Amino acid sequence: MAVAVCPGSFDPITYGHLDIIQRGAEVFDKVICCVMINRKKDPLFTVEERVALIREVTRDMPNVEVDSYRGLLIDYMHKKKANAIIKGLRAVSDFEYEMQMASINRKLDPGVETFFMMTNNKYSYLSSSIVKEVAQYGANVDDLVPPPVVQAFKNKFPLD
Amino acid sequence: MAVAVCPGSFDPITYGHLDIIQRGAEVFDKVICCVMINRKKDPLFTVEERVALIREVTRDMPNVEVDSYRGLLIDYMHKKKANAIIKGLRAVSDFEYEMQMASINRKLDPGVETFFMMTNNKYSYLSSSIVKEVAQYGANVDDLVPPPVVQAFKNKFPLD
Amino acid sequence: MAVAVCPGSFDPITYGHLDIIQRGAEVFDKVICCVMINRKKDPLFTVEERVALIREVTRDMPNVEVDSYRGLLIDYMHKKKANAIIKGLRAVSDFEYEMQMASINRKLDPGVETFFMMTNNKYSYLSSSIVKEVAQYGANVDDLVPPPVVQAFKNKFPLD
Amino acid sequence: MAVAVCPGSFDPITYGHLDIIQRGAEVFDKVICCVMINRKKDPLFTVEERVALIREVTRDMPNVEVDSYRGLLIDYMHKKKANAIIKGLRAVSDFEYEMQMASINRKLDPGVETFFMMTNNKYSYLSSSIVKEVAQYGANVDDLVPPPVVQAFKNKFPLD
Amino acid sequence: MAVAVCPGSFDPITYGHLDIIQRGAEVFDKVICCVMINRKKDPLFTVEERVALIREVTRDMPNVEVDSYRGLLIDYMHKKKANAIIKGLRAVSDFEYEMQMASINRKLDPGVETFFMMTNNKYSYLSSSIVKEVAQYGANVDDLVPPPVVQAFKNKFPLD
Amino acid sequence: MAVAVCPGSFDPITYGHLDIIQRGAEVFDKVICCVMINRKKDPLFTVEERVALIREVTRDMPNVEVDSYRGLLIDYMHKKKANAIIKGLRAVSDFEYEMQMASINRKLDPGVETFFMMTNNKYSYLSSSIVKEVAQYGANVDDLVPPPVVQAFKNKFPLD
Repeated sequence: MAVAVCPGSFDPITYGHLDIIQRGAEVFDKVICCVMINRKKDPLFTVEERVALIREVTRDMPNVEVDSYRGLLIDYMHKKKANAIIKGLRAVSDFEYEMQMASINRKLDPGVETFFMMTNNKYSYLSSSIVKEVAQYGANVDDLVPPPVVQAFKNKFPLD
Repeated sequence: MAVAVCPGSFDPITYGHLDIIQRGAEVFDKVICCVMINRKKDPLFTVEERVALIREVTRDMPNVEVDSYRGLLIDYMHKKKANAIIKGLRAVSDFEYEMQMASINRKLDPGVETFFMMTNNKYSYLSSSIVKEVAQYGANVDDLVPPPVVQAFKNKFPLD
Repeated sequence: MAVAVCPGSFDPITYGHLDIIQRGAEVFDKVICCVMINRKKDPLFTVEERVALIREVTRDMPNVEVDSYRGLLIDYMHKKKANAIIKGLRAVSDFEYEMQMASINRKLDPGVETFFMMTNNKYSYLSSSIVKEVAQYGANVDDLVPPPVVQAFKNKFPLD
Repeated sequence: MAVAVCPGSFDPITYGHLDIIQRGAEVFDKVICCVMINRKKDPLFTVEERVALIREVTRDMPNVEVDSYRGLLIDYMHKKKANAIIKGLRAVSDFEYEMQMASINRKLDPGVETFFMMTNNKYSYLSSSIVKEVAQYGANVDDLVPPPVVQAFKNKFPLD
Repeated sequence: MAVAVCPGSFDPITYGHLDIIQRGAEVFDKVICCVMINRKKDPLFTVEERVALIREVTRDMPNVEVDSYRGLLIDYMHKKKANAIIKGLRAVSDFEYEMQMASINRKLDPGVETFFMMTNNKYSYLSSSIVKEVAQYGANVDDLVPPPVVQAFKNKFPLD
Repeated sequence: MAVAVCPGSFDPITYGHLDIIQRGAEVFDKVICCVMINRKKDPLFTVEERVALIREVTRDMPNVEVDSYRGLLIDYMHKKKANAIIKGLRAVSDFEYEMQMASINRKLDPGVETFFMMTNNKYSYLSSSIVKEVAQYGANVDDLVPPPVVQAFKNKFPLD
């Protein structure tokens, strides 16, 4: 069974992430969407909140699992007997960082392969950071993140 | 009347910024140079200092206004009835971040258009960060920032 | 009156070009869409065909003019008393070429300003070349180019 | 059965291509390495020579097929009932072109997915063009292309 | 005597840095590897540790000196009567930052020249940050950093 | 004696090239500016014209030699007992191509080192191609190329 891991901070999950997870789930037998705990120093949402939001928005995808991990991605891959990493690519800056991560992961375990998928053009400008930047001022983010995340932002940033 | 907003941190204003503001002011009826407060977590100059420095160096430009704002750029545009954003572009890294910002702003209000102008080649390496990095050690920054900013650096970093 | 020139090969015009022309026409008093003859060595469509296609698809835009020119863009700007160039930006490779052109144009006449506008995300992958590459094999290009261009491709590449 | 197509000009195949084909063949049930005829206007090797070289160097990979096609990649995918495209990524310039191709292919058929794999670092500078550029002057290309290609170059460019 | 300075944070030195230092030392009469203190806000290793590690791994290179400096690189160059800076280039993001630094250094002293050298392809993904990111979880970094640095990581991150 | 080769098409030499040659000549004992014949398929100036123009504009630089070569750069380096290549870097697109060339040259002979120098900001947009593109229409190129090249353009493109 081909198991792919889709790692990230997911602080919070956006429609861009969801697009990659959905399309990955059509190709791989199982996709594990894993919140990597060490990657974000100062997250807006706790790990538990981030996992809960991903669970809620992937509820209808039977072969998507949600998890979190504090440690090395390669160690997690081994633990899960997964040998494919999937990552969305948007822009040149993504590209260079992700190539660097894929190189080091291949160095640590040549049996693990990273597959890059192209983020849908309509989400190519979308990142968790930019959504947080505008959501804090009450901007309408309905087209950027799924409804449970819209609600979560409303709870984090209540209008006075 | 065509009103353009030139948003930024301006911590502090450099000859590169000034070049964009001047050329924007030749095309638009009014250019509002606006210090966006939320964009810099740990500025060297206070908002008041930054606004005062921009005021001083744009004093001779009758159609340039200086302001500051804490909030969403799009909300500021509405408040000012401005429908054009002008930004200088220097390098590829600028380009990707600015395209992302322009995309989200267009998403939030399709009626607002971002115009990118090319920074003069002789300032293509210039950023507020790099000026601060060298000014803290007393480097001569006369060619990089206008005289009032040179003086402001001397006050911030007095030679022992 | 603010007159902007939108220069290009337009071999043929795509929805990406049209998007820039439309949005430019909302900001400038007049936009002249000009087929630059020297830029393409081996075009698929003749200059006359390219001009006719642009005319047809911009018919409902009262302040858009269509023209062609063999020569230096700066000379054309002078002839038309236009002082703004508008160009769409899609990707990093665009960015570097266009910055180079904008630099040389500014060198040749500092009074001419180039404004870069961001191509709509949904057309960010679109270029005349790629449309021609797929249209020659009879691919459906209805979402990529306006109906008159779809028809023009059918005439150029008749199905056997 | 998961079938992936690895399209390209392969004029000629290099160790960089071979690396991607091998690693793709470990993940997919079948990989079809397909010489796309329309992509190269002025190839050094004929289609038949290019196919024969790929056949020879992939002889020991039971699940790799070699083919050639004149036409649209998407049409070939349909013909072969394949729904994955695999491509190696080396540099930023690759990245932008390949993102553009992947976008248009997704537009033409949303059911076809492109997976980008990272070229091994030791081949990151390698391209068919650069190998041809040096091989024409008799440079030693043993580390760049497999032995049959080394021999094919010797036949194309005999030493006087 | 041609003296080159190779400045950096070296937090800690990797095989990528070492490659540049070694090759620089073959061309210049003397290479001074200088830990710039101001560049890293929150280093893993102290300046003393970083200097000691570089000393240990360059012990067999007679024309390599190791030093540290808090201040402007240009002032250090003057103090050492050095007129060449050498820097390794790996990726596009490096390139832009380093071009910016080289520009400002040339502005501050036109007599100082920066020479960029290409990092060996096999280390093109390697940075101090990524090594620290994986070393903190006990990953094997033997191929990424010299033995004394491997040991230093073991001391910083003891296995429980 | 440290001998550096500065290879290129030089069709024709610009102030950007001249800047690199001059600064290279301040660091190396001898700089050989070599017109590589194979690199340009369809040059505007013949090899003899290009060599003559470089000779004329470097006449006052005693340690600059001018030459031309049809063949592999590495073979030329050996013939001249030179072990350094110098190249100017302007933009990201330059960077990737030049890194590729430097990699293959290092592969062909690890003893040859490529040093990249930063083109002066004021020439960062300048290339032989863009100068030819504007000179053919009689644009004033006095600030872009040295006087003998200005004259050569006038001879190539006489005004009617």
